[in-house]
Amino acid sequence: MKVKGVNLGNWLVLEKWMSPALFEGTTAEDEYHLPRQLSREVYEARIKIHRSEYITERDFVSIKAMGMEAVRIPVPYFIFGDREPFIGCIQELDKAFNWAEKYGLEVLIDLHTAPMGQNGFDNGGICGVCRWSQCPEEVEFVLSVLERLAKRYGTRKGLWGIEVLNEPITEHAWKLMDVPNRYPAAEPEMAEGSGPNSLEFLRDFYCRAYDRIRTYLPEEKYVVIHDGFELLAWKDFMREEKYVNVVLDTHQYLMMAEAEGCAQELDAYRDYIEAHYKKDIREMQQYFPVICGEWCLFNSLACGCDTKGGQSVLNGVEGSSGERLDAEEKKRIYRAVAEAQMDAWNQGSGYFYWSYKLLTDTVNDKGWIGWDSWDLGRCADFGWFPTER
Amino acid sequence: MKVKGVNLGNWLVLEKWMSPALFEGTTAEDEYHLPRQLSREVYEARIKIHRSEYITERDFVSIKAMGMEAVRIPVPYFIFGDREPFIGCIQELDKAFNWAEKYGLEVLIDLHTAPMGQNGFDNGGICGVCRWSQCPEEVEFVLSVLERLAKRYGTRKGLWGIEVLNEPITEHAWKLMDVPNRYPAAEPEMAEGSGPNSLEFLRDFYCRAYDRIRTYLPEEKYVVIHDGFELLAWKDFMREEKYVNVVLDTHQYLMMAEAEGCAQELDAYRDYIEAHYKKDIREMQQYFPVICGEWCLFNSLACGCDTKGGQSVLNGVEGSSGERLDAEEKKRIYRAVAEAQMDAWNQGSGYFYWSYKLLTDTVNDKGWIGWDSWDLGRCADFGWFPTER
Repeated sequence: MKVKGVNLGNWLVLEKWMSPALFEGTTAEDEYHLPRQLSREVYEARIKIHRSEYITERDFVSIKAMGMEAVRIPVPYFIFGDREPFIGCIQELDKAFNWAEKYGLEVLIDLHTAPMGQNGFDNGGICGVCRWSQCPEEVEFVLSVLERLAKRYGTRKGLWGIEVLNEPITEHAWKLMDVPNRYPAAEPEMAEGSGPNSLEFLRDFYCRAYDRIRTYLPEEKYVVIHDGFELLAWKDFMREEKYVNVVLDTHQYLMMAEAEGCAQELDAYRDYIEAHYKKDIREMQQYFPVICGEWCLFNSLACGCDTKGGQSVLNGVEGSSGERLDAEEKKRIYRAVAEAQMDAWNQGSGYFYWSYKLLTDTVNDKGWIGWDSWDLGRCADFGWFPTER
Repeated sequence: MKVKGVNLGNWLVLEKWMSPALFEGTTAEDEYHLPRQLSREVYEARIKIHRSEYITERDFVSIKAMGMEAVRIPVPYFIFGDREPFIGCIQELDKAFNWAEKYGLEVLIDLHTAPMGQNGFDNGGICGVCRWSQCPEEVEFVLSVLERLAKRYGTRKGLWGIEVLNEPITEHAWKLMDVPNRYPAAEPEMAEGSGPNSLEFLRDFYCRAYDRIRTYLPEEKYVVIHDGFELLAWKDFMREEKYVNVVLDTHQYLMMAEAEGCAQELDAYRDYIEAHYKKDIREMQQYFPVICGEWCLFNSLACGCDTKGGQSVLNGVEGSSGERLDAEEKKRIYRAVAEAQMDAWNQGSGYFYWSYKLLTDTVNDKGWIGWDSWDLGRCADFGWFPTER
C-alpha cells in the first residue's frame, strides 16, 4: 500500500492563520472561542459561507488533476451537531464523499479535535487546554463520534480509512513546543491541570477505538493511529492478530526539525531527513504501514528568516519584511526539500501534504512571506512541488 | 495587441447560480434583493466571508500558471460604499491590484452593474429592471464611479483598462432573450417602463465616459466599450483622432448561437463560429481592436440536453438527470469548441474566458450536469481547455 494525498485543512476545523477573515472583529485565537464572541446569526453566516466556498467540487477536480489519490479531511468532535454552540458539518462530509467517488479519490476521515483538548494547539480547537484524556465522559464521547462516523461511511467506496485522533500530544513534544506559552489559554482556569497525554492512555484509547469502529468498518478499510510525536514508541503495540490494517501516522515538519536544532541550510535539512525521517520510518514500517499524514515544504531558509520553529506574527514573531530570495533560488530550495521528504515517505506507505489550500495573504498582510509553501495549490503552480500536470 | 485573460465573475458582483449558498434562506434572485431579505449583520457576514474566500492571492498564482496574462474584474456600481444597503468593495479591488502586480497579471476593471439596471439580467444586479438609461442622475452617478476608478487606478502598472459598462442591452437582444419573462422582476412596479437601451444613447454615454476617464487614464491604458450585442453597429463610431486605445468588447456564447437557431451539433457550432464570430470580428477589427470579453465552452451538445439557450433549473428548465456522454466524448467536444472559438478571437485582439471559477455543484445538486464548463479551472483540470501547464 502506498498513498499519495493531501489534507483539506481549515475547511471543517478552523485555524485562524489559514483564514483570518473568519475571526475578524474578535479576539478569538481558536475555534472554541469564535462562536462565544459572535452572535449566533453572524457565527452561523460566517461558518456556512466558509464551508460552502472553501472546499467545493472544483477542488476535488483540481486535486485529482494534480495526481493525488486521496484526501485527509480533518473533522471536529462536534461534526454531528450535538455540541452547542458549534454547528455540525456532517452534510459537508457527505458531499465530500460524493465528490470523491465521482472523481476517483478516497477519503481519510481524521478526527482533528476532542473536547477539552488533546494537544493545546490552536488547531486542536482550544489553545493551551489539554485535559481531554483526564475526562472519561469526553473520552467516551469521542469514541461515540468515531463509532457514528464508522457506521455512516464504513462501507462507502470512497472511504480510505478513519484516523481516530489527530496529534494527541505526549511528554517530549509538550516540552519542545512549550505549549502553555506558545498557545496561551484564553481562560486560564480552563487550562488548569493541562499536560501531555501518557503513552499508556493513548495505547488504551487506540485499542478501544479500534474495537468500536472495526465493528462497522470492513477489514480492507484502514484504522489510522497517530504516533503522538513518538514514532519509535509503537513497536510492541497491536501485535495481536485481531488488529488488521492499522496504519501508523507520523507528522514531520522541517520547522520542528529546526526546533530540535537542525541548521537552517539545505544540506542540514537533507541530512536531518535522512538521519531521522527516513531511518525511523524504515524501521517502523516493519511493524505498521507508516504514513506521513502531515508535512510541507515550509522552512526558515526559504522564508529568508528564522521562524523560530514555525512561529508567525500571530505568535509575535515578525517574519521577513520583503522577499530575500529570488524566484529561482526559492524553487531550487523547495524542490530539493520536496524530493528529499518524498523519498523518506516512500520508505513508508506514503503521505498527505498539509495542506491543500490556505487563504494566508503574503502580499497584503505583513509577516507572511514564505508561508505560501504550506499551500499545495500554490506549490504546484509555482513549480515547487512536482505534480503530474 | 493580443490579450489572453479570464473573468473573475461572481466575486464582487454576485450571480446566484454561481454561489447559491449566499442566497440560502431567501427568495432573492439577484443582488439587489439579497440585503433586503437579510438582517444587516447576516448580509455583512455572508458578503465579507464570500469576498475574502472566493478569490484570493492563491487564485492569481493559479491564473498565472494557466498562462493567462490578464483578469477582467466585474465590479458593482456601489463599489465605493456610497449606495446603501450595499457594502462597498474597493479594498478588495486594491488587494487584487497588489496580487496582479506581484504575479505579473493585468487588470481590466469592468463596471458590471448600473442602478436601475442596464440589461435586466440577474447578473446586471436586478432581474427584469432596465431603466438606468432613462434616469439622467443615475447615468451621472455611473460616470462619477468611472471617474473615481480612473483616478484611483489610472497610473497603476497593473491596470490594463477600464470597461465603462457591461452588456447594456439593445433591441434585438432584448427580444431574443425575452428579458421580462426570462428574468421576471421581483417588484413589477420597479420594472415598469423597462426596455432596451438605444444605440444612440449608448454612443453618447460612451463618448462622455471616455472624456471623463481619459483625464486620469494615460493613453496606453485601454478604454473598453461593450457592443450592446450589436457587433457590427460601431463602424462609424469614435473615428475622431482624440479617441485613443478604445477597445470594442463583444460577448459570444454558444447558447446564444443556439437561441439564434444554430443546431446542437459540433459541425453546426464550428460553422456558426466561422460564419458569425470569425467573420464579424475580422470585419470590426478594422475599426477597433476587438476582444471577446466573455465566452465559454458551455453548449447543449456536451450537456446532453437542450438547455433552451442556456437556461437552468433556476429558470425551470430541468437539465440532464445523469451523465449522457462519456468523459472522452465530452473532452472531444469541448476541445473542438475551444479551438474553434479561440481561432475566432485571434482574428481580433484576444479574449477573457467567463469565468475563472464557480461553485455550482454538478454532483450534489440536481440539474447542473454540464455547467462545469463555465469554470475555467475545471476546464483546465479536465483537459478541456488547453493551458500552458
